[in-house]
Amino acid sequence: MPKIKNQYLKVDPWKIEEVGYKKEESMVSESLFSLANEYMGIRGFFEEDSDEKSLLGVYFNGLYTYSPKQIESAYKGITDKVHFMVNSVNWVRVQIEINNQIINFSEINHKNFSRSLDFKSGELLRSYTAILNDGLEVEFSFKRLLSMNTPEYGYQYLTIKANKDIDLAVKFSLDFNTLHWGKYHFWEEKQKSATSPTYVLGELPTKQRLLALMHIETNKDCEISYEESDLAVERKYKLRLKKAESINFERKFTGLKEKQASEKSHDLLEKGLKLLSNQPSYQEAYAMNIKYYQEFWNNFDISIKGNEEHQQGIRFCLFQLQQTFHGVDETNNIGAKGLTGEAYSGHTFWDTETFCFPFYLLNLSSAAKNLLMYRYHTLPQAKERAKELDCLGACYPIATLNGEESCDLWQHASLQLQPSTAIVYAIRHYMMITNDDDFLNDYGMEMLIEISRYLYSRGDFNQTRTHFGFYGVMGPDEFQMMVNHNTYTNYLGKESFKFTLEMLAYIKENYADKYCQILSKLNLTEEEINIWQEAEAKMFLLYDEKTQLYEQHLGYYELPHLDINSIPATDFPLYHNWTYDRIYRNDMIKQPDVLMFMFLFNSDFSNEVLQKNYDFYEPRCIHESSLSPSIHSILALQLDKNEEGYKFFEFATRLDLDNYNRNTLEGLHLTSIYAAWMNIVYGYGGLRTDALPIRLNPTIPEAWDAYSFHFTYKSIKIKVEVDKKSFTLILAEDLAEPIEIKTKPVYLKKGKNTFAI
Amino acid sequence: MPKIKNQYLKVDPWKIEEVGYKKEESMVSESLFSLANEYMGIRGFFEEDSDEKSLLGVYFNGLYTYSPKQIESAYKGITDKVHFMVNSVNWVRVQIEINNQIINFSEINHKNFSRSLDFKSGELLRSYTAILNDGLEVEFSFKRLLSMNTPEYGYQYLTIKANKDIDLAVKFSLDFNTLHWGKYHFWEEKQKSATSPTYVLGELPTKQRLLALMHIETNKDCEISYEESDLAVERKYKLRLKKAESINFERKFTGLKEKQASEKSHDLLEKGLKLLSNQPSYQEAYAMNIKYYQEFWNNFDISIKGNEEHQQGIRFCLFQLQQTFHGVDETNNIGAKGLTGEAYSGHTFWDTETFCFPFYLLNLSSAAKNLLMYRYHTLPQAKERAKELDCLGACYPIATLNGEESCDLWQHASLQLQPSTAIVYAIRHYMMITNDDDFLNDYGMEMLIEISRYLYSRGDFNQTRTHFGFYGVMGPDEFQMMVNHNTYTNYLGKESFKFTLEMLAYIKENYADKYCQILSKLNLTEEEINIWQEAEAKMFLLYDEKTQLYEQHLGYYELPHLDINSIPATDFPLYHNWTYDRIYRNDMIKQPDVLMFMFLFNSDFSNEVLQKNYDFYEPRCIHESSLSPSIHSILALQLDKNEEGYKFFEFATRLDLDNYNRNTLEGLHLTSIYAAWMNIVYGYGGLRTDALPIRLNPTIPEAWDAYSFHFTYKSIKIKVEVDKKSFTLILAEDLAEPIEIKTKPVYLKKGKNTFAI
Repeated sequence: MPKIKNQYLKVDPWKIEEVGYKKEESMVSESLFSLANEYMGIRGFFEEDSDEKSLLGVYFNGLYTYSPKQIESAYKGITDKVHFMVNSVNWVRVQIEINNQIINFSEINHKNFSRSLDFKSGELLRSYTAILNDGLEVEFSFKRLLSMNTPEYGYQYLTIKANKDIDLAVKFSLDFNTLHWGKYHFWEEKQKSATSPTYVLGELPTKQRLLALMHIETNKDCEISYEESDLAVERKYKLRLKKAESINFERKFTGLKEKQASEKSHDLLEKGLKLLSNQPSYQEAYAMNIKYYQEFWNNFDISIKGNEEHQQGIRFCLFQLQQTFHGVDETNNIGAKGLTGEAYSGHTFWDTETFCFPFYLLNLSSAAKNLLMYRYHTLPQAKERAKELDCLGACYPIATLNGEESCDLWQHASLQLQPSTAIVYAIRHYMMITNDDDFLNDYGMEMLIEISRYLYSRGDFNQTRTHFGFYGVMGPDEFQMMVNHNTYTNYLGKESFKFTLEMLAYIKENYADKYCQILSKLNLTEEEINIWQEAEAKMFLLYDEKTQLYEQHLGYYELPHLDINSIPATDFPLYHNWTYDRIYRNDMIKQPDVLMFMFLFNSDFSNEVLQKNYDFYEPRCIHESSLSPSIHSILALQLDKNEEGYKFFEFATRLDLDNYNRNTLEGLHLTSIYAAWMNIVYGYGGLRTDALPIRLNPTIPEAWDAYSFHFTYKSIKIKVEVDKKSFTLILAEDLAEPIEIKTKPVYLKKGKNTFAI
Repeated sequence: MPKIKNQYLKVDPWKIEEVGYKKEESMVSESLFSLANEYMGIRGFFEEDSDEKSLLGVYFNGLYTYSPKQIESAYKGITDKVHFMVNSVNWVRVQIEINNQIINFSEINHKNFSRSLDFKSGELLRSYTAILNDGLEVEFSFKRLLSMNTPEYGYQYLTIKANKDIDLAVKFSLDFNTLHWGKYHFWEEKQKSATSPTYVLGELPTKQRLLALMHIETNKDCEISYEESDLAVERKYKLRLKKAESINFERKFTGLKEKQASEKSHDLLEKGLKLLSNQPSYQEAYAMNIKYYQEFWNNFDISIKGNEEHQQGIRFCLFQLQQTFHGVDETNNIGAKGLTGEAYSGHTFWDTETFCFPFYLLNLSSAAKNLLMYRYHTLPQAKERAKELDCLGACYPIATLNGEESCDLWQHASLQLQPSTAIVYAIRHYMMITNDDDFLNDYGMEMLIEISRYLYSRGDFNQTRTHFGFYGVMGPDEFQMMVNHNTYTNYLGKESFKFTLEMLAYIKENYADKYCQILSKLNLTEEEINIWQEAEAKMFLLYDEKTQLYEQHLGYYELPHLDINSIPATDFPLYHNWTYDRIYRNDMIKQPDVLMFMFLFNSDFSNEVLQKNYDFYEPRCIHESSLSPSIHSILALQLDKNEEGYKFFEFATRLDLDNYNRNTLEGLHLTSIYAAWMNIVYGYGGLRTDALPIRLNPTIPEAWDAYSFHFTYKSIKIKVEVDKKSFTLILAEDLAEPIEIKTKPVYLKKGKNTFAI
């Protein structure tokens, strides 16, 4: 794994901090200093004019448009219409004029540059002193905040002080002229006003709308003027600022989005104005954020004693995942880059159910349910997609915002079944932990049935009908592009049928009326249930009793062997440096595939079998997915390969902070952040939740003195504290269900439960 | 094979003829009535104004441009720059005004419409009588001709006669405003003149240029005026035409293309004006064409007695293939649609060496050599392409005009090795028939070496190095998209190494100096030769002695079986009606794959083995390639499956005439036309030229009384006449090499050699 870190920020347990300015790190910092609150996100770009390289990104979760390049595919079932999260209004833009000179960061000298983001408040602070002509020095401080309580609210707080008297003018804009991908523009102006109230209402080609309103207060008398231009409004404040006096400007921003197109602009405006007029001050919002994060850290913190870099890394992860998603809205999901960049188009992948879901399931089950509800709401699109693919039921997209398949690489969109099976896995996981029968009856069962229909119609029997499986698929290892009987896909397929059949039987027994309703609503027959049973029973799994190995797919062992250590480091990432098809012509794998289902269904496999497969597949894996190291770390730790487990762990926790993949400038690897959480809780904590009783088996790396983490099980909050000798589970209440602690089922009591390590 | 014919034209042995006008057949007729002379081509569209559906296509072989839609591929080795033969100057356009009313074919009544194309002259004639107001009837006759001797020359001959006095005005244009794909325009005007001389010089973005000149003569005094507009010039002729008097206009057209960009426009103009001034009259050109075709039919005719449809079908094929290519220029090749349409972008595929080459090799070896020289000239591009694919040597493109890969479907461009192996096959074929050692020494060997280099670097050994083969390939059967050890590819790969090694040994022995030169020029080492030997010896061929079957690729037998007869006829073509990946998930095949190499290396296989494989693979083949039925017909006839052989034959010979595939409107299936020739000569004639001695074993279908065909072997012209009882080979000279006639080697003598059937 030739990954080398590039550590730039200061190490601190509760914040990230950049001291001094480094031009070449500018865009990486923009990503790292991103703010978000699930509803919206903003990269840490500069407010004032500058010529630095920048991705000026402001995103509202769920606002998207379709690609201007309509790809016309000659073939059926290949998506020719892709959508993406669209860059939107710049609401922090300011233009500063001092003695009639516009301040451009790139053109002036400066000192004392610093930028910091505080995990306890979510406040972003940037400050520096501009060194101008004739000994004039002007101090700037830019603060920024998104409300975690009322997500439509954003704040900006600007302070300026000079060492001489100056003529100062500051122009505050709301500007929809942001270019997407630095090239395209999609917004149409529907309404605006520069005077009071100050707002712009923009509309996308999808007819979704965004109302951006602002209100500005300052501590000094200024001459105020207004300007309007296409898609933008501006308010300009002018004054004579005395030497050593501070002026501050507080901008309140309300961003009100309408995901569903409606015709009544005035309702939106009315609602927005009301929101703005009720908007608390910066100081009030700051205080509320402090409180919000206090509770968050109380419940979700992971503390690590003995390694400050890891401590900062994991807190940064937790902070960013909370910013990205916490279940505000059941039509939101988690993009690969969250709300921190345009790469991956804001799309949700199978990562959500596979890597992100456990965090919510074990911490905030309402958010976990919302993620499942997002899939339920997009069931119609998944059914439509299955039809496009000549299949039955529902095929969930590999990449989407609005539920439609938005990946125009057919090899991924048509051959990867893992989005659908991951949803079944998440429902199964959710039901196991929550026993939420209402969800199952009202939503879950329907998804299970439609996915099973899809899987059955997408699969096939062999010529002698002795086995069933999936032909022409791409498993999680995307370096085997189109294969038959990928064992991950078959395994997940088998488990999907099994769980669907179990749940049908469960509802039949416990909710007879509901069972009849479901059968009738979905036209489900006994015959269909029977064929699923046959497919489940005959699912082809390439397991060899003798070697105890699962073959990754039919024919995998026949592939030429490639010694991955022989690949020069300069060849990575391979997608850029190797011709496309070359990647596929050997036994190299990109990310865990066999090992992935051995993690997901961990209790199905003995350590002996796991070890055999780990030892076979790990040396063939180049970890070209950022999700790969964490899974390997978790399994290595299970197999007492502590050094290896630690090596993989280091990467995951500080992936973006140390820009391991050199692409953090495009945005944060949001879903990898969840994998980092799993790496601690499942890896070092040894938690397993794939079967009942759930299991816990903590270990501690040499480099740490102690660590702690939280999870919630059966509505009981549990804090786990681990040191070199023992570990303690602290519960708020007695727990009625057993947890298997180091192979023995234990009923935990309220208070401290201590075990030797 | 759910192919249903749509017979529309009159049956005639020496021409095609359309009597009466049928709107819905208009574009099909445009394709069928195409003229070409290798240098240029023109579809049979209307000269005068009309609103009929039309593809107004005029093409100059080798004039191309790059796609305006630059596809940016995220992956290495995927072509993001495609080029295509570009539609060019309309040089037959006329606008006719009668009594100040512009004649628009779609707006007037007409009678006596007819259109015919004469195989003995290449003259296209279209005539009808327009029925205008007040009993006015005007007869039009449009004739068109391309010179087969001086390919820059085109002709138009227009005759008009009315039953009343009329005011007539006729405007003749040279018009570069033609839209490509009905949408795009690429020509830039460099120079023009409407007066004498009349010309337009157009330039493409590739800097290739086309000079279009014309000269018009008429038999009556007219008032002549000139017009110029953007990219076009016009000459207008006005007169009072008396009742029952004929006026005729003769337009001479010279089209001079420059494939290589140069800076000197005036040279081109000078050359063009000289050509135009020497241009013979229509009547002279017509007479020369008659002579040209007389010789052509004397040498190449296939006569069929007893079935006029077949007779017309095969003559149409021969006529069109002669029009498309006869070796005028060694930088020309044969597009899938020839010069008759824009579909397939004028590209040359592996069809050239696989299906077209034998016709020339056995009839006009200079043209065969030119086709090989085309590949030699594009060797630099093939080497560049191999580099793009991280391979050594030369990888020939799957689709090209200028030698660069122009297929943006990576699965075809990167996975199909058959263009390169087909070139080796053609060189092998060529050497076997011609013993042209100069060609081998100067050009052939270099191509063989570079292709072997490519093949070796593209292939790989298995993990135990017991066998070599190709991973991640698409064989001729494009319904198995990406497989390992496709037997066609491995077989052709093996034969390519074998032939390269043989020829190296041959040159070493016979041309020692040349051998050293080649080694030194190409940096070829003994070591490299040795590894090819190893790859050849260890080539993995999936043959089972017990069943005598070749498996199409590793894992083919494991695929679910699809009964192709269960597919509804309305599902065809499958590419339009089935989702893309669905096509790949079963054992259905698109066109011969195992059977293809059993045809190409026919002498390697006993009839018993052939039969086993035919019986296994034919029922799995849906013939979605127009090239498929002929190969099946040839092999069926070899196996005495006469009825089946005949059924497949009927399709091939009249594929376009009867519009079997319903897409003749896009242009003619030029390469299928060659397959139709093979279907008679290799199928009924039983000719085999894949090994020495060549073999002949004629049979005759029940429906025919007799047939004859020609071929040339070792420079001796041979005419084969077959009737129900016997066949006769008529030679101009004694033949020094034996031909195997019905399994026995025979030395044929000058004159008639008759054998019982």
